[in-house]
Amino acid sequence: PPASSPPPGSPAAPALADAYARVRAHTEALAAPLSAEDQVIQSMPDASPTKWHRAHTTWFFEQFVLVPHAPGYRVFDERLAFLYNSYYLAAGPRHARPRRGMITRPSNAEVADYRAHVDAAMARLLADPAALTPALAEVVTIGLNHEQQHQELILTDILHAFAENPIAPAYDPAWRWRPATPADGMVSLPEGIHTIGHRGDGFSYDNEGPAHRVLVGPVGIARGLVTNRDWLAFMADGGYAEAALWLSDGFAAVQAEGWQAPGHWREIDGQWHAVTLGGSQPVEPDAPVCHVSYYEADAFARWAGRHLPSEAEWEVAAATGELADAFGVVWQWTRSAYLPYPGYRAADGALGEYNGKFMVNQMVLRGSSLATSPGHARLTYRNFFPPSARWQFTGVRLAAFSA
Amino acid sequence: PPASSPPPGSPAAPALADAYARVRAHTEALAAPLSAEDQVIQSMPDASPTKWHRAHTTWFFEQFVLVPHAPGYRVFDERLAFLYNSYYLAAGPRHARPRRGMITRPSNAEVADYRAHVDAAMARLLADPAALTPALAEVVTIGLNHEQQHQELILTDILHAFAENPIAPAYDPAWRWRPATPADGMVSLPEGIHTIGHRGDGFSYDNEGPAHRVLVGPVGIARGLVTNRDWLAFMADGGYAEAALWLSDGFAAVQAEGWQAPGHWREIDGQWHAVTLGGSQPVEPDAPVCHVSYYEADAFARWAGRHLPSEAEWEVAAATGELADAFGVVWQWTRSAYLPYPGYRAADGALGEYNGKFMVNQMVLRGSSLATSPGHARLTYRNFFPPSARWQFTGVRLAAFSA
Amino acid sequence: PPASSPPPGSPAAPALADAYARVRAHTEALAAPLSAEDQVIQSMPDASPTKWHRAHTTWFFEQFVLVPHAPGYRVFDERLAFLYNSYYLAAGPRHARPRRGMITRPSNAEVADYRAHVDAAMARLLADPAALTPALAEVVTIGLNHEQQHQELILTDILHAFAENPIAPAYDPAWRWRPATPADGMVSLPEGIHTIGHRGDGFSYDNEGPAHRVLVGPVGIARGLVTNRDWLAFMADGGYAEAALWLSDGFAAVQAEGWQAPGHWREIDGQWHAVTLGGSQPVEPDAPVCHVSYYEADAFARWAGRHLPSEAEWEVAAATGELADAFGVVWQWTRSAYLPYPGYRAADGALGEYNGKFMVNQMVLRGSSLATSPGHARLTYRNFFPPSARWQFTGVRLAAFSA
Amino acid sequence: PPASSPPPGSPAAPALADAYARVRAHTEALAAPLSAEDQVIQSMPDASPTKWHRAHTTWFFEQFVLVPHAPGYRVFDERLAFLYNSYYLAAGPRHARPRRGMITRPSNAEVADYRAHVDAAMARLLADPAALTPALAEVVTIGLNHEQQHQELILTDILHAFAENPIAPAYDPAWRWRPATPADGMVSLPEGIHTIGHRGDGFSYDNEGPAHRVLVGPVGIARGLVTNRDWLAFMADGGYAEAALWLSDGFAAVQAEGWQAPGHWREIDGQWHAVTLGGSQPVEPDAPVCHVSYYEADAFARWAGRHLPSEAEWEVAAATGELADAFGVVWQWTRSAYLPYPGYRAADGALGEYNGKFMVNQMVLRGSSLATSPGHARLTYRNFFPPSARWQFTGVRLAAFSA
Ligand SMILES: [Fe+3]
Ligand SMILES: [Fe+3]
Ligand SMILES: [Fe+3]
Ligand SMILES: [Fe+3]
Repeated sequence: PPASSPPPGSPAAPALADAYARVRAHTEALAAPLSAEDQVIQSMPDASPTKWHRAHTTWFFEQFVLVPHAPGYRVFDERLAFLYNSYYLAAGPRHARPRRGMITRPSNAEVADYRAHVDAAMARLLADPAALTPALAEVVTIGLNHEQQHQELILTDILHAFAENPIAPAYDPAWRWRPATPADGMVSLPEGIHTIGHRGDGFSYDNEGPAHRVLVGPVGIARGLVTNRDWLAFMADGGYAEAALWLSDGFAAVQAEGWQAPGHWREIDGQWHAVTLGGSQPVEPDAPVCHVSYYEADAFARWAGRHLPSEAEWEVAAATGELADAFGVVWQWTRSAYLPYPGYRAADGALGEYNGKFMVNQMVLRGSSLATSPGHARLTYRNFFPPSARWQFTGVRLAAFSA
Repeated sequence: PPASSPPPGSPAAPALADAYARVRAHTEALAAPLSAEDQVIQSMPDASPTKWHRAHTTWFFEQFVLVPHAPGYRVFDERLAFLYNSYYLAAGPRHARPRRGMITRPSNAEVADYRAHVDAAMARLLADPAALTPALAEVVTIGLNHEQQHQELILTDILHAFAENPIAPAYDPAWRWRPATPADGMVSLPEGIHTIGHRGDGFSYDNEGPAHRVLVGPVGIARGLVTNRDWLAFMADGGYAEAALWLSDGFAAVQAEGWQAPGHWREIDGQWHAVTLGGSQPVEPDAPVCHVSYYEADAFARWAGRHLPSEAEWEVAAATGELADAFGVVWQWTRSAYLPYPGYRAADGALGEYNGKFMVNQMVLRGSSLATSPGHARLTYRNFFPPSARWQFTGVRLAAFSA
Repeated sequence: PPASSPPPGSPAAPALADAYARVRAHTEALAAPLSAEDQVIQSMPDASPTKWHRAHTTWFFEQFVLVPHAPGYRVFDERLAFLYNSYYLAAGPRHARPRRGMITRPSNAEVADYRAHVDAAMARLLADPAALTPALAEVVTIGLNHEQQHQELILTDILHAFAENPIAPAYDPAWRWRPATPADGMVSLPEGIHTIGHRGDGFSYDNEGPAHRVLVGPVGIARGLVTNRDWLAFMADGGYAEAALWLSDGFAAVQAEGWQAPGHWREIDGQWHAVTLGGSQPVEPDAPVCHVSYYEADAFARWAGRHLPSEAEWEVAAATGELADAFGVVWQWTRSAYLPYPGYRAADGALGEYNGKFMVNQMVLRGSSLATSPGHARLTYRNFFPPSARWQFTGVRLAAFSA
Repeated sequence: PPASSPPPGSPAAPALADAYARVRAHTEALAAPLSAEDQVIQSMPDASPTKWHRAHTTWFFEQFVLVPHAPGYRVFDERLAFLYNSYYLAAGPRHARPRRGMITRPSNAEVADYRAHVDAAMARLLADPAALTPALAEVVTIGLNHEQQHQELILTDILHAFAENPIAPAYDPAWRWRPATPADGMVSLPEGIHTIGHRGDGFSYDNEGPAHRVLVGPVGIARGLVTNRDWLAFMADGGYAEAALWLSDGFAAVQAEGWQAPGHWREIDGQWHAVTLGGSQPVEPDAPVCHVSYYEADAFARWAGRHLPSEAEWEVAAATGELADAFGVVWQWTRSAYLPYPGYRAADGALGEYNGKFMVNQMVLRGSSLATSPGHARLTYRNFFPPSARWQFTGVRLAAFSA
């Protein structure tokens, strides 16, 4: 997604080269614990193999930065554009998304070569201050933010694959859930006009604008996240079996998928366990509930006599600084559908396909998660997934209209 | 959907008995041109047989009015509750929705007997002023509004069935499309706080409330509807083939369904025809476009350099009285997802299932259509369908943010 | 299916006119108890509406007899060829098979007019002895046999529709199952060479030839049919739950379809009932089991320590005259796949599509059923259905290799 | 499949230990060119990952030989029985077949350890002549034949995976198709009674018996195989587009799958290539056609004015020694459905599930292929696949009834 305008205060060349090196190295660090076997598979159409993420983010720089901007750049392998384009219709034909897990060759080692080849060319390009036009800085910045998004997906997608393996492998055996930050009560928002959406300096995706004025409140937004303890109470009260608590499509999903608990949970000898990045572990009651769909979040809120916040309410409340765990723990479902802000128009060209064409049939999540890369989160960030999705690190913060 | 509070000024007994007789007779008048054969089939899971509509609306009065409120009422046939319950989980098990077209018996004549049996009991009940408590008046009023909704579906559903018949039967051979009311330009709405949603007297569905304040504008709303002439220009410009105009899910629908024109259109010897209530007829260029999905409406707006209005914008603009064909021609897609108004809570019990549980994965339409029953439309009415639906009488009104 | 050679002793004109009138009248008699509503629906893709059967058999005479052979014949309605062609690719495009139940118009009355129109033309044609060439006599004879096949389907298809109606309507309220003819023991066939397949005079389908020599035996073929009493013992012994008794595809069907008893059976208050042509009735223990698939027949035989006969074994045994209920009760599954006899070649042209192109993925049934039309059965007749089919009147006769 | 009786002349202990070592080493040799990435994926539900084949064949020895027969044997890992059981219901629950490609851990290296663990235990067991009872020898022999079957699948399954990779990797870059052995004319079989099926010494699967007498002929069986040159003529003549040449289910497959040529063929710049074990190569006209389904073989035979042989005809003709390429090139489709021989009864217990439960909905292939392991082919061998399958090395030999 292009920023809505050329980012004022675009980073200088050394800063950008540095950011490039840092982000790219982080991807490799995330992949390091995974074997070549781990990296090749795709556990469902919505997920992608680690190797694919590593190659696709590289293709993004090759396609949108090096080919148009680096004189004399030699494409690593013409066939990779077909394999590693994701959904950019304007950038040519693509390999079928659900078949990404079939590509054993190029091998993991060849993808590492591809990354090195592109990284070298990028380093040369970014080393030349004269070459760093604002347009180039902008698209490199987009590429880095894009790669950060895929970094989060590397974790969510491999966790999904491991969670369906009867052996429940651990990505990092030492990993453990931490308790949610204790935080009682609500942040009260009286009626008022606020401006939401991205303004001013710094990078943002186009879907965060145009900034615009909205009327918010009166409403209360819970300071703390819903925990596993809360969720176990919902389950014990028959929450998954009580149709009256659910949206019609939601209860259909419950029945079709056989949901009886959050994603990646397994009942072992009468005790609930969750397959986590640390492997299978007993559910930690004080940790925030995670891997719940919008349908489940909505049903839980109804059961609790509460609602979910709208994305505007969330943004205004978070701006007060009084929400615990707003960022870095679990994404928080809002009751807002993912729609364009008033007057939004996607950019022309392939990068215009980044966000705008997905603005239907999805719900907005706000905040960020433990898997979000450092520096990638911000107040105006709009994440979005279908209401049935639950393989991301998604949780729940409640709202109340009578608070 | 129960009104949010007992309707003040509930109709007196004679008025209600009169309304009852009038609404019920209108259903029969709508079904009259259809043979028993026509009335038994179901052309897709989302549609229902005419006979089913006639029986189901009758069951609604039996189940929610007569059984609880009419002492000594004898149920017509216990088996019909199973066949003609639609989706009220709280009212017991139901016949599978996609199999409604398999029920040749009870016959059409037996369903007429069922209607007569219930009508007689209702007439007796409503003839007694003493019996007409506010609660009773409310549920009868809901039943009448419910039946009016099914009246519209009788027309849209049989048209869908006829439109897939190679012979393209006519519901009413004399029926013809009329031109849209000519109306140029936009209604300009400057920024302002407005209250939307239902207030005050008269019936409304629960999803029209709570009334609440919203910030609207600046925005312009087109006075007139998009016409077939406009749509043919979109088609001639390759609109259905240009992925960049479409939401991703929308273009997937175009390809999966083979859409090349609005619903019920057929190309015959190089000329576009539409199967209408009057049978197959050449497309009338000045008539409003009809039978388009949200996906198509959205793509058309993008092609036209415009947007769709939000439902709040539509309601505020329509309240000015300056919109042509706001009611009675075609429902108008908005860019608003169908979601609860702030603080909305569905009523308890079976009637609480009426609206609230469908508040996800659908888009709001406003206004009303040529098939909407007399007296059923109002400014705050929220109709809703999935973005792929196009068998209803659905059209397009545009909005502009730079008007 | 054209007879393999022009039938020697083709019927003379008066006899054929008489046969025509008789067969056509029988179709109408079968449809008479059914309302127009009953006649329009299609309860699954493999079944067809009664009205469709009546129109399609009429189209067959129009398309293959009147148009090529009756000078000056005026086609009733050009559009019906599209609607009522079944699967003859060579005869032009067809209406989609699974959508046959959507055709409410032409009405039932118009189809009656269609039948009358064709019958009048056929009567004129057959009244002229000079016009009755052997080729014409052959195709009329095929048309009559074709219509007899559809007569059986009229009964099986409406029974399927009624059996899924919760109300279980009766086609003929007086209809009852009769006990199987008591018959103990086996017909022993020592090893020997026999000729099977159709020879000599009289009509046969092309798939009954070429007659050819086969080696049969030693084997025993049960004189009597398997009864409901036998089947209830199989059920009581856990037959439907014991995977080891089933073919792999068969057990998958059991699980996917939830089979726990023969087709059209319902358990009501702990007692098994069957929806029959006489409506829902308690299962008659002495009646032959009916509405079982090949998978079930095969599993039952294994449970009983027996096998199913091959079609050659069946034909040789039936020729001895010692089998009870070989004809006129239930079709009997054989363990033979439906394949061409050695040297078989389908005829050219549309009628060559009658049988040959279905010779894969189906199993042969022999004999005939209570729904088979008078005069339609014979020793060499090869009926065929997929191994999962059970809406026909299909039952079981056992064989033994150690008898 | 257990041999129908304890194999007379069962191998002595040293011979069996030697055979065991040889067969097991051959599996590893086949897997050696494949990376761990290559070995983990599953390209369709009917195929399996190489790693799975290696582990499953090992589990077979552990489950059916070591656990019951080797005192003190320690199971390598209890969890592997769940992962590597294929379809033996009697041997306990299994991992879902279509999800075999999701198991990145146990790693390829751990599966190598598993193989070594079992091989060591097997070596100890087979080293003891006293322990080698006939029953033990029989099940070891079955295990070796089982592993040989999976050896062929290792090749066919990885070729399927590579053939869908746009890059078309080569299993063995030096591999090339060789021309079919030139062989004109037909072997004429006059009518006669022959015994087919397995008799006498040596191993066979249970589905090859009971040996029994059949009447075969008169018929001619082509000495040579159908070649790519023949197939290109069929294609050039519009074979894939002419419905009249096809079984109805076959033409439906052509249309649903978009078949226009044999499996793994790609048209590149107007020239047909095939993805082979040697990667993508121009089609060799003199090589036998390969990767065709039964539907295609049947349509080709009809186009050629010929038939396919029955399995009995094939076996009798092959016994004359006059067929070229009967073994070791491509499996040859017969027109025989895969059904039990007269009097066949599967063995009790888990090993009885080997063959018998698949005897429906499949067609028999005879001979063997270039991928069949040394020593695994024989005259009476019955291979079987659904008529739509074409990822095996399957080709065509014709028959004629007027030869
Ligand atoms: Fe991406
Ligand atoms: Fe309703
Ligand atoms: Fe027919
Ligand atoms: Fe196996």
